[in-house]
Amino acid sequence: MSRSAPSSSPIVTLTTDFGLRDAYVGTMKGIILGICPSAPIVDIGHAVSPQNVHEGAFLLRSAYPYFPDGTIHCAIVDPGVGTSRRAVAIRTERATLVGPDNGIFTHVLMQEGMVDDDGLLVAGGAVELQAEEYRLPAVSYTFHGRDIFAPAAAHLAAGVPLRNLGPPADKLVLLDLSAARLTPSGVLGQIIHIDRFGNAISNIPAEMLPAEARVLTGDAYVAGLSRSYEEADVVALAGSVGLLEIAVQNGNAAERFALHVGDPVQVTW
Amino acid sequence: MSRSAPSSSPIVTLTTDFGLRDAYVGTMKGIILGICPSAPIVDIGHAVSPQNVHEGAFLLRSAYPYFPDGTIHCAIVDPGVGTSRRAVAIRTERATLVGPDNGIFTHVLMQEGMVDDDGLLVAGGAVELQAEEYRLPAVSYTFHGRDIFAPAAAHLAAGVPLRNLGPPADKLVLLDLSAARLTPSGVLGQIIHIDRFGNAISNIPAEMLPAEARVLTGDAYVAGLSRSYEEADVVALAGSVGLLEIAVQNGNAAERFALHVGDPVQVTW
Amino acid sequence: MSRSAPSSSPIVTLTTDFGLRDAYVGTMKGIILGICPSAPIVDIGHAVSPQNVHEGAFLLRSAYPYFPDGTIHCAIVDPGVGTSRRAVAIRTERATLVGPDNGIFTHVLMQEGMVDDDGLLVAGGAVELQAEEYRLPAVSYTFHGRDIFAPAAAHLAAGVPLRNLGPPADKLVLLDLSAARLTPSGVLGQIIHIDRFGNAISNIPAEMLPAEARVLTGDAYVAGLSRSYEEADVVALAGSVGLLEIAVQNGNAAERFALHVGDPVQVTW
Repeated sequence: MSRSAPSSSPIVTLTTDFGLRDAYVGTMKGIILGICPSAPIVDIGHAVSPQNVHEGAFLLRSAYPYFPDGTIHCAIVDPGVGTSRRAVAIRTERATLVGPDNGIFTHVLMQEGMVDDDGLLVAGGAVELQAEEYRLPAVSYTFHGRDIFAPAAAHLAAGVPLRNLGPPADKLVLLDLSAARLTPSGVLGQIIHIDRFGNAISNIPAEMLPAEARVLTGDAYVAGLSRSYEEADVVALAGSVGLLEIAVQNGNAAERFALHVGDPVQVTW
Repeated sequence: MSRSAPSSSPIVTLTTDFGLRDAYVGTMKGIILGICPSAPIVDIGHAVSPQNVHEGAFLLRSAYPYFPDGTIHCAIVDPGVGTSRRAVAIRTERATLVGPDNGIFTHVLMQEGMVDDDGLLVAGGAVELQAEEYRLPAVSYTFHGRDIFAPAAAHLAAGVPLRNLGPPADKLVLLDLSAARLTPSGVLGQIIHIDRFGNAISNIPAEMLPAEARVLTGDAYVAGLSRSYEEADVVALAGSVGLLEIAVQNGNAAERFALHVGDPVQVTW
Repeated sequence: MSRSAPSSSPIVTLTTDFGLRDAYVGTMKGIILGICPSAPIVDIGHAVSPQNVHEGAFLLRSAYPYFPDGTIHCAIVDPGVGTSRRAVAIRTERATLVGPDNGIFTHVLMQEGMVDDDGLLVAGGAVELQAEEYRLPAVSYTFHGRDIFAPAAAHLAAGVPLRNLGPPADKLVLLDLSAARLTPSGVLGQIIHIDRFGNAISNIPAEMLPAEARVLTGDAYVAGLSRSYEEADVVALAGSVGLLEIAVQNGNAAERFALHVGDPVQVTW
């Protein structure tokens, strides 16, 4: 493996379902720093539910806009590890994405306008990670985070051109996102994430809603949108990534109203 | 946002109740490294119980003395986010504190002798974080960690003078700490933290106690102080931050004796 | 404490049972960066069950081969803190180990061929951490991670020679590892780790097994070895560190088959 120490390396972020009980994440960091010693490594999150690609995709999407240009995002929620699913690296206008080709980059690719509805690349570039000199010498069937993705991310951070990592990939797998849709009386969406505070985050962009909107989901009914968590006991508001969110002041909305990922959210006005 | 890369930046620490399930902490790190790429970022802890300012204050106080001069401590347990509570930065003799003005810095400020009992600043300096050029362009009502505190900490790390961040703040909010108090037969205090091992940490400074002191709390009674965890099955000793602590050898004292934060601790001799 | 900032410091890794609820880990990082500001610090894991030296030893061993030469591994699972158990630093061919002398380095030392069966050092070198100038001024009886091990690791990272840290140690404590053993019909081993996905990892090297091997453990029976997790509903395969592992496709093998650390694993062919 080549080693290089540019004076200022791009950030490498990690988003996985590896958890923090095992040595999986630490092992990846050892690989990365062995190849690119000066790369700052940032954990976006490792508590994604096992094999939940949708959750990993949402996590990455939440953090993505706040990282500087040139950041390398390595995201691995990979139920298909060791099968024929492809390993890819994708260059967007402001970042590089490294991970399995299973849809984990869907939100980011769509927000950046990089793919059409079928996953065909319409901007930037992508490669399939096949070049053996940028993998570990022995590739396992069970831990591509260590053997393929961490080395690829680190070599990219050290300045290796994207095209060197493998043949071009023109079409990428996308998740089937159920977008919020307009109804005669408002919008119908669903809950896509419950956060640490029990706030229930929907897939409904809050900017499309009038202040007097009424929100119905699970056992919760909220009339009118708030701006901050402290305006009422139960609030519906624009959360930190711009999506409609239901929250309880100093409490847990998901527990109180039995809200779960996938529950429908009805907004009327 | 300005970017700068001094050859050696001060450390930025993070203490929050954001947990590690969501992308909140990773997002803050993206912001910080975008503004000050060379800042080493250290997590003090993100598992503070939601909205528990007392717990966050204790965590910060435990780690604070062990960081080098010049460190910037960003602490965010912020039930009042989006309301009129102030955002502040405070310079002590050896560090800079960044966070909501809700008491989270109480222990540190008192240990450093920086405030009187009413929170009036008697040393160092503080500002209210109002300067728009050191915030994100759009400030949300729900995530000031990302929009105000991370940018402020990073700009300070990059060398921006404290006074540039906003108008002076003369008085700071303090938590109501129930200090341990002398009784006719000894000291009365309370449990302020249960650690990962189930050790119950009180607010009683151990240096004030004689070796023959008897400790009573919950279902636990211990006669005499020990030095290490291994001296007996159940021990009372000076914990790592100098406070009286009740522990069980290779076991969990909090579970065994049903101890909780807030329980009274009676010491007699 | 001396401070130094070499242009490129070795990595310092941390493996502990300190958890992430308290400030213990953050405190150690403050110490390390105060002594060696440029040291990249990597968490291998802090969720080791309290006082479980075997689990810590396995974690370190899993990550160890993937870190670059010169890395300093600080591992602290330390039921004997504050007693007469020794604190040591050990130099292997490619790394330095810092921690209590209680067996936590057993796997690494054996894999590197550094000790005989009695723990007598046959290669490299080791010292007992006694030199006061490389400890904190006041050493507690409860937190040697902060007072002894973090300073030692940091001074080593800053270039202090190993021999300066204390007198040589010739013999090291080893864990009693129950190695897998051959039986008339195959191999008998046991489960040594359950990972985040519920995969049950045994102490049986997979390379010694034929493809047609049958595996019996707990309620699980698997005929034939697989290569990847996706080849069948229940699989037995060579896991990421080369050990035989039982897994369920997109499920939790430990829960489904009631598997626990210590359970026997019988392989026949």
